Amino acid sequence: GTEADNDLYINQAIVFIEDAIQYRSINHRVDSRSLWLYRWYYSRTCQWILSLTITIILALAFFEKPSSLTVTSDVRYRHPAWNPPCGLTESIELLCFLVFIIDVSVKSYLIGWEEFWKNKWLMAYILTLIVSLTDWVVSLSFFCTEVVRVRRILRPFFLLQNSSMMKKTLKSINSTLPEMASVVLLLAVHLSLFTMFAMLLFARTKDGQQDKEWVGYFRNLPDSLTSLLVLLTTANNPDVMIPAYSKNRAYSIFFILFTVLGNLFLMNLLTAIIYNQFRGYLLKSVQSSLFRRRLGIRAAFEVLSSLREAPANAQQSYVSTGALIRVLQKAEMDSRCKQAIMRSLKMCSCDQLSAAQFQKLFEELDKDAIKQHPPSPEYQSHFMQKIQFAFGHPYFGYLGNIVALANIISICVVLVMDADKQPSERDDFFLGAINCFFILYYLLEMLLKILAMGLKRYLSYPSNRFDGLLTVILLILEIATFAAYGIPHPGWRPEFMGLLSLWDMVRLVNMLIVFRFLRIIPNMKFMALVVTTLLDLVKNLRAFAGILVVVFYAFAITGIMLFKGAVVPLGNIRLFFVADHLLHEENSRTVFQGKMWFHVWLSLDTSRLRLFTVYLLSVNLICRWAKIYFVAWWLISSVIWVNLFVALLLE
Amino acid sequence: GTEADNDLYINQAIVFIEDAIQYRSINHRVDSRSLWLYRWYYSRTCQWILSLTITIILALAFFEKPSSLTVTSDVRYRHPAWNPPCGLTESIELLCFLVFIIDVSVKSYLIGWEEFWKNKWLMAYILTLIVSLTDWVVSLSFFCTEVVRVRRILRPFFLLQNSSMMKKTLKSINSTLPEMASVVLLLAVHLSLFTMFAMLLFARTKDGQQDKEWVGYFRNLPDSLTSLLVLLTTANNPDVMIPAYSKNRAYSIFFILFTVLGNLFLMNLLTAIIYNQFRGYLLKSVQSSLFRRRLGIRAAFEVLSSLREAPANAQQSYVSTGALIRVLQKAEMDSRCKQAIMRSLKMCSCDQLSAAQFQKLFEELDKDAIKQHPPSPEYQSHFMQKIQFAFGHPYFGYLGNIVALANIISICVVLVMDADKQPSERDDFFLGAINCFFILYYLLEMLLKILAMGLKRYLSYPSNRFDGLLTVILLILEIATFAAYGIPHPGWRPEFMGLLSLWDMVRLVNMLIVFRFLRIIPNMKFMALVVTTLLDLVKNLRAFAGILVVVFYAFAITGIMLFKGAVVPLGNIRLFFVADHLLHEENSRTVFQGKMWFHVWLSLDTSRLRLFTVYLLSVNLICRWAKIYFVAWWLISSVIWVNLFVALLLE
Repeated sequence: GTEADNDLYINQAIVFIEDAIQYRSINHRVDSRSLWLYRWYYSRTCQWILSLTITIILALAFFEKPSSLTVTSDVRYRHPAWNPPCGLTESIELLCFLVFIIDVSVKSYLIGWEEFWKNKWLMAYILTLIVSLTDWVVSLSFFCTEVVRVRRILRPFFLLQNSSMMKKTLKSINSTLPEMASVVLLLAVHLSLFTMFAMLLFARTKDGQQDKEWVGYFRNLPDSLTSLLVLLTTANNPDVMIPAYSKNRAYSIFFILFTVLGNLFLMNLLTAIIYNQFRGYLLKSVQSSLFRRRLGIRAAFEVLSSLREAPANAQQSYVSTGALIRVLQKAEMDSRCKQAIMRSLKMCSCDQLSAAQFQKLFEELDKDAIKQHPPSPEYQSHFMQKIQFAFGHPYFGYLGNIVALANIISICVVLVMDADKQPSERDDFFLGAINCFFILYYLLEMLLKILAMGLKRYLSYPSNRFDGLLTVILLILEIATFAAYGIPHPGWRPEFMGLLSLWDMVRLVNMLIVFRFLRIIPNMKFMALVVTTLLDLVKNLRAFAGILVVVFYAFAITGIMLFKGAVVPLGNIRLFFVADHLLHEENSRTVFQGKMWFHVWLSLDTSRLRLFTVYLLSVNLICRWAKIYFVAWWLISSVIWVNLFVALLLE
Repeated sequence: GTEADNDLYINQAIVFIEDAIQYRSINHRVDSRSLWLYRWYYSRTCQWILSLTITIILALAFFEKPSSLTVTSDVRYRHPAWNPPCGLTESIELLCFLVFIIDVSVKSYLIGWEEFWKNKWLMAYILTLIVSLTDWVVSLSFFCTEVVRVRRILRPFFLLQNSSMMKKTLKSINSTLPEMASVVLLLAVHLSLFTMFAMLLFARTKDGQQDKEWVGYFRNLPDSLTSLLVLLTTANNPDVMIPAYSKNRAYSIFFILFTVLGNLFLMNLLTAIIYNQFRGYLLKSVQSSLFRRRLGIRAAFEVLSSLREAPANAQQSYVSTGALIRVLQKAEMDSRCKQAIMRSLKMCSCDQLSAAQFQKLFEELDKDAIKQHPPSPEYQSHFMQKIQFAFGHPYFGYLGNIVALANIISICVVLVMDADKQPSERDDFFLGAINCFFILYYLLEMLLKILAMGLKRYLSYPSNRFDGLLTVILLILEIATFAAYGIPHPGWRPEFMGLLSLWDMVRLVNMLIVFRFLRIIPNMKFMALVVTTLLDLVKNLRAFAGILVVVFYAFAITGIMLFKGAVVPLGNIRLFFVADHLLHEENSRTVFQGKMWFHVWLSLDTSRLRLFTVYLLSVNLICRWAKIYFVAWWLISSVIWVNLFVALLLE
């Protein structure tokens, strides 16, 4: 019947509008039942459950068996890690898999069969699920004692496929690969030619005294290659050339040439190529999002225009205002936007809308909300007005900043004076007294500002919220200190009482005061600019960060699997990091396991991979595969690092 | 008289045309005598003498007293450095100063008094010369035993003032300083806040076992500041957090936060700012050069147009072709350009030139020479034509590349097999035989190519020149080897004879063969692209490199002066670089002196300044000023590094 048709059209329009708002594709089934399913699938609850499931399955690695998540990382002191019984993590995993199965079925159904066969991501999703479930069955049938768990490495895929931004970014990265491969090939040629030169230059001589360089770094082909590869990361930079340099200064020319060509030119070439590729990336992604939005709105218009019972003229289609209002009332969208659109609908006071008018109405969506602060209270009393003027003035804020600075400086002075003192010699009176004074000032400042601005206006500024929250916490801490340890007086150094010692309380208060000092940021023009830029950047870099997490996770899991119990202590004192860490853990053959996370983080973080050497050298003794693992990690992490960096440059 | 006037005009035109060719400013005196002086000053000989003088005065530092330029850097083996008698380097210096005085007087005279007072560079030049001469007099009156030599630090100024490109680049860098200062300020705030946090977090505790972190890195304010500053360079990255991390994994959050904010965001912000500043730098500099050229040509036109005895119409000025030909014959310029201009003058066959025509004639200057290879010889014999076709074909070149690759691989195989052998066990027969074969092939290839292409065409390709030269050198070496050691046979291992041992000869041959392998570069498309890009880049970066040299020189000299005999041996084995280097040089209190060059190079080269720590920690024991010196060097070198890098990105 026409009524049912009309309802369907209205529902379709609602879904298209919601698609437009969320920048989703409108490429899905539009029959009545599917629409209901679609709205349910993209409802906040369902998406939240999906995200939670992904988080849980990713977090499982921290609790599963070869992990060692404990407070301390020192094997001498740490308790054995909590070992979940077989079947616990596995049943959580199964629940997650069930959610994913529902997810993939709904997605496949909604997209329709024709689209389904074209969608490689969905196919990969199903394949991943099948492999994971098979692996899970194998795992349970061995009672969790199986050697390899393939499904762990596959886990980050679930994170990847759930974000369209990440998929898009991955596609961009993929298209850069051929050019990057060329540069990597060039690097390989550079490396191998120089290796041959080095082996000829630093060959073994008859005089045993003279060939330190050969003994240390160029004993055979793999050694030479490793030495120069590590030199490319500048990790062994001075050390590798010292023996040759001691013999003859001219040898340094070889190393300088190698470093300049490899590090300065070829490495930066890689950056330049990626930069060129990603130049228009952000712009293009914004454009395609906007295009999706336009498309969704247009689709809604077309659907609503076919709703009209009597098409007046076939040339141009129109939408009745009433239908649009019905759609708007049912669609889920930001209430501010909804009100704005309603308002302009009323102002237009026309009965029918053309396509252009329809699009124009929804331009409100693209606008950012301009925040309006609530007004200050209006006082009758002349005195109160004066107070309001005085304490609402920016200068009062500056005074607050100066006081905060004075507080920081006083803490700094006390720290410098007390730095070398034994804890028993320390007198907490001075710090306690001044902190007490300053906290009272902060409280006064907050109250006066609230008085001047009114509570609502005060809270509408983020800097005030930050300020007020910290002031309240400081006040509570201070009151708790006084309740437990009494009023400060000279020689105020009571023993441990309650949850925290006085010293810890004072330290905590001081840290919060240092943290509170960050309120000066919005007051300094350049700083505020930098901070807002950084925040914008972080928003844009989320997709990159997600991919970083995926790679990170996969590498960490692979590392844990590869080096499970593989590290034996080394006797090489020179590598003092390894020494420090491995030597005193002699009885632990599983040092790499728990620390893999941390280690992979470290090797990412140093960016030039100083640790890389240490690992290469230590792991070298164990197996050759480890070397390949770390070289791959170095290449990938440095490439992603450079990407992040370049995206920053695009600003 | 008119004749004298005419001669003057012609001379002026010549000078203006030469200014245009060299992109010089036309802002100088134009009377007859000055023009002669100007042409003399900018003649190739004079400019060459000036460059030589600058090179000599810069090179003096390698021979002057606190230097220690010897073959080996190891004090145990090295002979005492040659110590020039007092007055030798000083008299060379005086000669250089005399050249500079002539230079500055001529320059000041030519530019004219009015311009002179506006030109700050000339003033600075004169000031530098006065200070240097005064210092020189002081030096001689103390018989070269004075403590400080100020004039040495001033020397790089002579290099700086002689290049207009470097002056321009310096101006650009100068305009970026305020923004860079803001970021550095931000870094300082970041550093100091985190230092306070760290001091509160890692305070001394009652349990001596627990405060390793405090003992190692955060004992007092300077220690904490240094630890975190070095962490900013990622030099002590894992070490600094290990004690805290051992205690509680959560402490790593502090370090990760610090590194991400400081290294990832603030450091890259510096790069982004410099990038924005230098975005249009190359383009602008090319534009201003072209503008100078246009101006010079226009000035020549104006001068020549006032030469015409009978101005036909006052509205438009014309230049007679005859006058232009006279000017062209006398002007110094590229012969190819001269011929091209003459040719187009004849083709035009007009008697007078308008300003537009005049400018158009000289557009030839802006064109790059399109290289035409001489034709191949034309053989009559059918057989010779076939040979020519076969060996002139690109496939023959590819075959040569494949043979070179085979040679490389065979050398590689021998190297891998012989790597661990004692020199006495080594049999040079195999390598000698195959190298002999390959070199014969290379000779044959060269001869056949010459036959096919003709000698002239063969030599017109750079890759062939490279190839041929190396082949000839290899042939000579091989013949010399045979002459000294006979024909290779199994067990070919004769003792040392003549200048080089057989082993050294073979190694040299092998290195040359590896070097010859670079001929494949033009054959690979991507590689050729990269290499030409890099060569272009190097041209553009000359000015930056010059400034780098200036900064480098000044820092090295300052370092030599500051740390003269200041280093005492250290007992800290952990810093094994220092240990290796300082411990066994116990009796040398002047280790820093001679090595300063190398050290400054190293600390520049590692870019993230791993050595920086070592220096900071070792030098810390000596004096606080050293710390400031190294921090300054780190900031400046990293900034210049980033500049180079960013200029690369502009491509």
